[in-house]
Amino acid sequence: MIVYGFHPVREALRHRPHDVARVLVGAGRSGPRRREIAELARRHRVPLTSVEGAELVRLAGAAHNGFAAEIAAPAAAAASPSDRGVVVLIEDVQDPRNLGALLRVCEGAGVERVLIRDRGSAPLSPAVIKTSSGAAEWLPVARVTNSAQAIERLKADGFWVYAVAAGGEPPWEVDLTGKVALCIGGEEKGLRRRTRELCDRTLGLPMRGRVESLNLATAAAAILYEAVRQRLIGSPPHSPDPG
Amino acid sequence: MIVYGFHPVREALRHRPHDVARVLVGAGRSGPRRREIAELARRHRVPLTSVEGAELVRLAGAAHNGFAAEIAAPAAAAASPSDRGVVVLIEDVQDPRNLGALLRVCEGAGVERVLIRDRGSAPLSPAVIKTSSGAAEWLPVARVTNSAQAIERLKADGFWVYAVAAGGEPPWEVDLTGKVALCIGGEEKGLRRRTRELCDRTLGLPMRGRVESLNLATAAAAILYEAVRQRLIGSPPHSPDPG
Repeated sequence: MIVYGFHPVREALRHRPHDVARVLVGAGRSGPRRREIAELARRHRVPLTSVEGAELVRLAGAAHNGFAAEIAAPAAAAASPSDRGVVVLIEDVQDPRNLGALLRVCEGAGVERVLIRDRGSAPLSPAVIKTSSGAAEWLPVARVTNSAQAIERLKADGFWVYAVAAGGEPPWEVDLTGKVALCIGGEEKGLRRRTRELCDRTLGLPMRGRVESLNLATAAAAILYEAVRQRLIGSPPHSPDPG
Repeated sequence: MIVYGFHPVREALRHRPHDVARVLVGAGRSGPRRREIAELARRHRVPLTSVEGAELVRLAGAAHNGFAAEIAAPAAAAASPSDRGVVVLIEDVQDPRNLGALLRVCEGAGVERVLIRDRGSAPLSPAVIKTSSGAAEWLPVARVTNSAQAIERLKADGFWVYAVAAGGEPPWEVDLTGKVALCIGGEEKGLRRRTRELCDRTLGLPMRGRVESLNLATAAAAILYEAVRQRLIGSPPHSPDPG
């Protein structure tokens, strides 16, 4: 597959250089970013090819930013690398930029793995990977066909399962230090009703102005970093009482 | 000016209907969103015109989503509506979607006003307003020519001024309950060096995965909602020691 954009190409060269078959750089490209990519490619003995802009567009689409790389397929659905215990289930997120931004936040906040409901969600396209700043390549992502079954498995595995939706409890009033799964629905309609019904509780951010909601990635950022905060300071706000 | 997209048009009809000269709806548009807009327009006696898609594109650009409205210029730089005491200073944010997403988060988190450094920043275009989900219309936004002067004025007015940058202190270790100004820099280079030097302290989110940073709006969301949390629970983590 083709990865494109400066950050994804750099991430791939840094962390999985053996999977990178070739780096492509726009012929007109110069400056510190080009030098950094060229140095990484040299260090890891990855061939670097200078190509015309039109060829880059053909390979990587219009938003290549001057950089692309041919790499092995992403390690999706790999075994979880740790047991930090935050899982995110995503349903019906169709905009590739929204999905990419969401994956970037998840990876940055140390989410263990992401489950994406297959039908209704955008594929992990190069556009998603680019917006994710490479996160879509590092985060274990599994596609599931049925959210209800995924939630039942999470519960059986000891997770508390929280819906993210308007009007939910502020995340700082809920214990997020244990095994926690957050379910996040699409831009238009949010979570499916059946999915929401299966969740133990609903988390939401108080809206302090006039807009009715935040976008998916920003809401996820505020909630996931509240989980990071609770984990780092080691004290939940109070005992949870899900159900 | 023309506002476009379902949410911005709805926000305008709900909160400042007297400024809306006309609502335009794509001729092919039907369903609950069209009904809601039509009902709001009827209630506030705003004329609604059904226009062909090509005409909507001409007026509002490609991303109109089926809805547009002609409204009076935004109430930028208006007097602050309250004294909740969080101000955000934005420098060099050039991508309209990033700026819009950032303004949406600011408005949702109850930010009192936003200052945007004039040079180097995107204008408050219809694309910004649409991505902001209407927030760019509700938030008092002032354009400033000089960040340093703006920061000096904020300090003179009793604000603690915090830079947002990688490697900064976690926001939950800093008292964010008082008068607080957050300075947020652009996608590529962050804050200008001079701006950062003038700030009292630097806030940043710990990165728990492999990506090196979050995007602007998501980082702002996590930090601003930590400020909301501290204000709602009424207890800062410890006394601040800026400088």
